[in-house]
Amino acid sequence: MPQRGFVAIAVTPLAANGTIDYAGIGPLMDFYINCGAAGVTLLGVMGEAHRMTDADARTVVDAAAEAIAGRIPILIGVSDSSLQRVASLAEHGMSRGCVGVMVQALTGLQGDANIAAYFAHVADTLGPDVPICVQDFPKASGVHISVGVWKAIIESCPTVAMLKHEDEPGLGKLSAIREAEHAGLRRVPILTGNNGIHLVQELDRGADGAMTGFAFPDTLTKVIELHSSGRREAAEDLFDHYLPVNRHELRTGIAVRKEILRRRGAIATARARFPVKPLGATDHAELDGLLRRLERSTGRPITEMAP
Amino acid sequence: MPQRGFVAIAVTPLAANGTIDYAGIGPLMDFYINCGAAGVTLLGVMGEAHRMTDADARTVVDAAAEAIAGRIPILIGVSDSSLQRVASLAEHGMSRGCVGVMVQALTGLQGDANIAAYFAHVADTLGPDVPICVQDFPKASGVHISVGVWKAIIESCPTVAMLKHEDEPGLGKLSAIREAEHAGLRRVPILTGNNGIHLVQELDRGADGAMTGFAFPDTLTKVIELHSSGRREAAEDLFDHYLPVNRHELRTGIAVRKEILRRRGAIATARARFPVKPLGATDHAELDGLLRRLERSTGRPITEMAP
Amino acid sequence: MPQRGFVAIAVTPLAANGTIDYAGIGPLMDFYINCGAAGVTLLGVMGEAHRMTDADARTVVDAAAEAIAGRIPILIGVSDSSLQRVASLAEHGMSRGCVGVMVQALTGLQGDANIAAYFAHVADTLGPDVPICVQDFPKASGVHISVGVWKAIIESCPTVAMLKHEDEPGLGKLSAIREAEHAGLRRVPILTGNNGIHLVQELDRGADGAMTGFAFPDTLTKVIELHSSGRREAAEDLFDHYLPVNRHELRTGIAVRKEILRRRGAIATARARFPVKPLGATDHAELDGLLRRLERSTGRPITEMAP
Amino acid sequence: MPQRGFVAIAVTPLAANGTIDYAGIGPLMDFYINCGAAGVTLLGVMGEAHRMTDADARTVVDAAAEAIAGRIPILIGVSDSSLQRVASLAEHGMSRGCVGVMVQALTGLQGDANIAAYFAHVADTLGPDVPICVQDFPKASGVHISVGVWKAIIESCPTVAMLKHEDEPGLGKLSAIREAEHAGLRRVPILTGNNGIHLVQELDRGADGAMTGFAFPDTLTKVIELHSSGRREAAEDLFDHYLPVNRHELRTGIAVRKEILRRRGAIATARARFPVKPLGATDHAELDGLLRRLERSTGRPITEMAP
Repeated sequence: MPQRGFVAIAVTPLAANGTIDYAGIGPLMDFYINCGAAGVTLLGVMGEAHRMTDADARTVVDAAAEAIAGRIPILIGVSDSSLQRVASLAEHGMSRGCVGVMVQALTGLQGDANIAAYFAHVADTLGPDVPICVQDFPKASGVHISVGVWKAIIESCPTVAMLKHEDEPGLGKLSAIREAEHAGLRRVPILTGNNGIHLVQELDRGADGAMTGFAFPDTLTKVIELHSSGRREAAEDLFDHYLPVNRHELRTGIAVRKEILRRRGAIATARARFPVKPLGATDHAELDGLLRRLERSTGRPITEMAP
Repeated sequence: MPQRGFVAIAVTPLAANGTIDYAGIGPLMDFYINCGAAGVTLLGVMGEAHRMTDADARTVVDAAAEAIAGRIPILIGVSDSSLQRVASLAEHGMSRGCVGVMVQALTGLQGDANIAAYFAHVADTLGPDVPICVQDFPKASGVHISVGVWKAIIESCPTVAMLKHEDEPGLGKLSAIREAEHAGLRRVPILTGNNGIHLVQELDRGADGAMTGFAFPDTLTKVIELHSSGRREAAEDLFDHYLPVNRHELRTGIAVRKEILRRRGAIATARARFPVKPLGATDHAELDGLLRRLERSTGRPITEMAP
Repeated sequence: MPQRGFVAIAVTPLAANGTIDYAGIGPLMDFYINCGAAGVTLLGVMGEAHRMTDADARTVVDAAAEAIAGRIPILIGVSDSSLQRVASLAEHGMSRGCVGVMVQALTGLQGDANIAAYFAHVADTLGPDVPICVQDFPKASGVHISVGVWKAIIESCPTVAMLKHEDEPGLGKLSAIREAEHAGLRRVPILTGNNGIHLVQELDRGADGAMTGFAFPDTLTKVIELHSSGRREAAEDLFDHYLPVNRHELRTGIAVRKEILRRRGAIATARARFPVKPLGATDHAELDGLLRRLERSTGRPITEMAP
Repeated sequence: MPQRGFVAIAVTPLAANGTIDYAGIGPLMDFYINCGAAGVTLLGVMGEAHRMTDADARTVVDAAAEAIAGRIPILIGVSDSSLQRVASLAEHGMSRGCVGVMVQALTGLQGDANIAAYFAHVADTLGPDVPICVQDFPKASGVHISVGVWKAIIESCPTVAMLKHEDEPGLGKLSAIREAEHAGLRRVPILTGNNGIHLVQELDRGADGAMTGFAFPDTLTKVIELHSSGRREAAEDLFDHYLPVNRHELRTGIAVRKEILRRRGAIATARARFPVKPLGATDHAELDGLLRRLERSTGRPITEMAP
């Protein structure tokens, strides 16, 4: 499992008719690698996992594993209301060389003990050879992973090997977990989500990096590098150039993200599956403006990588 | 605080124009006392607490305290998003001779520690002289009080003196709490809600009675008496006569409940506050049929008390 | 599509290890047919659809279609966050002779226009040859189908051919839809859910029957027959014998339902998939008591069919 | 009612013990006026309205009305589950010279017709002399006000005189409402919320200004002025300096907002009512850093007003 840096939550490239763009998966993986990604996570929420058939999911895994060919580690999002689907997709992914899986709590779970028990059950089902990244994303799951729950998970699940931290507000929780680790709790990498909108503050508080889908992964990679090499203010200076677009993408969603990736040459179409609506003329013009301002502010076309 | 039996969740009698029917509060309290109630709880959800101004709430407390004049203990529902409102109404009630307050968790709280901390904070704010009944009503609050949370509350809040158990399904939780008490946890009375629809099974599992608003409190009192005197099957026989109406009232809500209470002579109008809609002709005819069947099945007019 | 009567929401029989009990599907289908079911719906919520892999779902459809062999019509629940999964399972089912599909609104949809548009999009995707039963189950989906939404669906989706009505409280909505039909809205069968706990009142208000999973389908069939033959009070008399068990099953869930079906000989194990917990000793004793009382009340062992 | 510009959602100044800081209300109102606010809204969510007793709310209104003394218009948030509280606070406010009230939909309302009916009922209750600003804040209310609902409200409620637009993502809805107005729908001012994080894009799409609580109201005022005077890029340049702090404040909440206001000299303590937790040392250091960067970027101490 990646220990630090930026891990890309991959979108799933689609053809104009909504089917998987098999041929487009390789170029997208190259894009993430060129952005300096320390890994890639397939089939997260932004990979539209919940809109995939079992066959679709396997196709995505197979194509990405073939294209990446071991250059960077691959994780797979396997969250599902069916533990059988969780296990079956995990097994498929591990057989293709993936390094682990990302699992979200079952939607609507309540009670610290129930939440911890869920992950214990998943870990037990997947067995000792499947490293697990716990995705803490209450906005999607409705599940609150308190620091106490996290301790219980870490203590009862030896295969839990990463936290994707996407709670909001979550800065205090991040600090509390790092403190618990100083007090003896087993330490695992914490990578943060939410488009990286708080990335610098999260790094300040001890995050090891980010795992998210922002359409400028090269920038997030660079921000993390600068921060870890002691150039914290430079990191935030760089990040702040991108904040206007980051905020816009975070709050308008996957249609804007895919459109930016398309404009950057990472994918062939901005198509997302129903019920995502395509951008209209006003949305495009608005995005034009934001990207033009970004180019002016950075002095670099969006099609170029951050240096 | 009442230790066992039936405690009535009182409706709030309203005049036809929606103002508090001050004069009607005394007769309603007499009705509950004649039904054998071991206590009465004012300003619960079915007392439309969330539709009352601060002045309304004081009026209800004053009128009920005066009318009851110490014949049975009074609790007051004080749940609110404002801790100041909680404390202020509690203080008013205690000054009028109430025996304690009923408090629900703050809507939307998540995490065992946060929920327990909430009750600790409330108990601390109210001080050592205000006994608290914890209302566990996830359907209204969205809060899940696990057995672990309950233990934490009991251990940290010496003034918590009762559990109103209204979780659903909640039979297993009831058993688990009683088991924890056998293992040493401080024991407090558990009175169940949900209109008493599972009352006999709850008594089987160790509940001390019910605290709910079913329009036939005399029946619930009698069911509890029969059960506690060892006549369990007779208790369920009696209850089952009332189950068709109980189910109907539970699932159609306060408009039906108030209408039955009106027909039984307990209140003068079935009026509830906006946005509750009054019953229409079809609703009335449906209720006529259910009550006619009840009278046939019990051989007793609904205006008579259960013997 | 069935036009009236009782349609069984089938459980999915599982082996003790949680895999599909392929051999058990035939006997279960025979049980439903012997109960007088006018049809069977596979892979509803109580069929644990959300816990099935794509392969599991196909297995269930294939086995049931083979076993039923045209004796009664089959519907398939296809609700999913992935429209691709919806379409793919629907296509598979229709190829096996199913008469239609049951579709729930996408979880969390809000706004009348969005909800109606969802069903229009699904209907369009499935094409003119796939009759649709709209499942109105807000407790699961969080979606409110108002009478206005229902009108929009009926007017824009010619393939919508049934309403599974499972709103709660929903009696008023049922009447309002029937009134709209009297005023010219295209009429489709309305079958009600929620374990049939309000079945007689729903039939009074114009429901054409029930589509639900209560473990005594023979009783519901008989209740509907009595009601439609003008013996309304006899229908309610029969129903009321079963109400104590119906209420218990409705509110405790699938573990109790499967256990009753097992005791009646309809399935071999009461196993349900994670996270459903198996019944404990107290749960079993409680159910023993309720079923013993039922046998005493009806004078008939639960293994016998309602006459 | 204000027709354009920035309207401040006022915090409620508290003493260290959590009581209303009566003496602090005047200076805070002066601060908002000095920031160029076109109006002030008391007792919104950020004014902690849901944590106020009826007496607290009146105190706040009285103190603010006295301090402002007609210099700018005052609105009052009156949203509550009790229509009696809504009406009673509205009446009190109007008697003190307020120009209107802000009302959110009743929490949990679903169905276009129900939502529109709620506002019609509120408008009817308040009478023809109380202008209403509809607060569209689904994150707090769970209610989705579609464009269709908005049309129904506008057509049925002549006293609705403003929309506080706080949906997210909501840019498309803003455009759609403006288009409907071009097609003949009665036009009312639309002021946007969410801390103004999308303010420039919202102005581009036709918003008339913002009504929110960002601790730099002077900046938002200036951004709106620049935009309306045709200097759109300058507006966004200015806004973007503040975006890092805006984003941080928006997502960490009222404790950070009150602390910034305190540092700017607008209020005496950063105290918010339970359950808001005070900032810890790490939170303060983090905020120090963000504000230092802001001062460097703008070349102006945060205690100075935007020019």
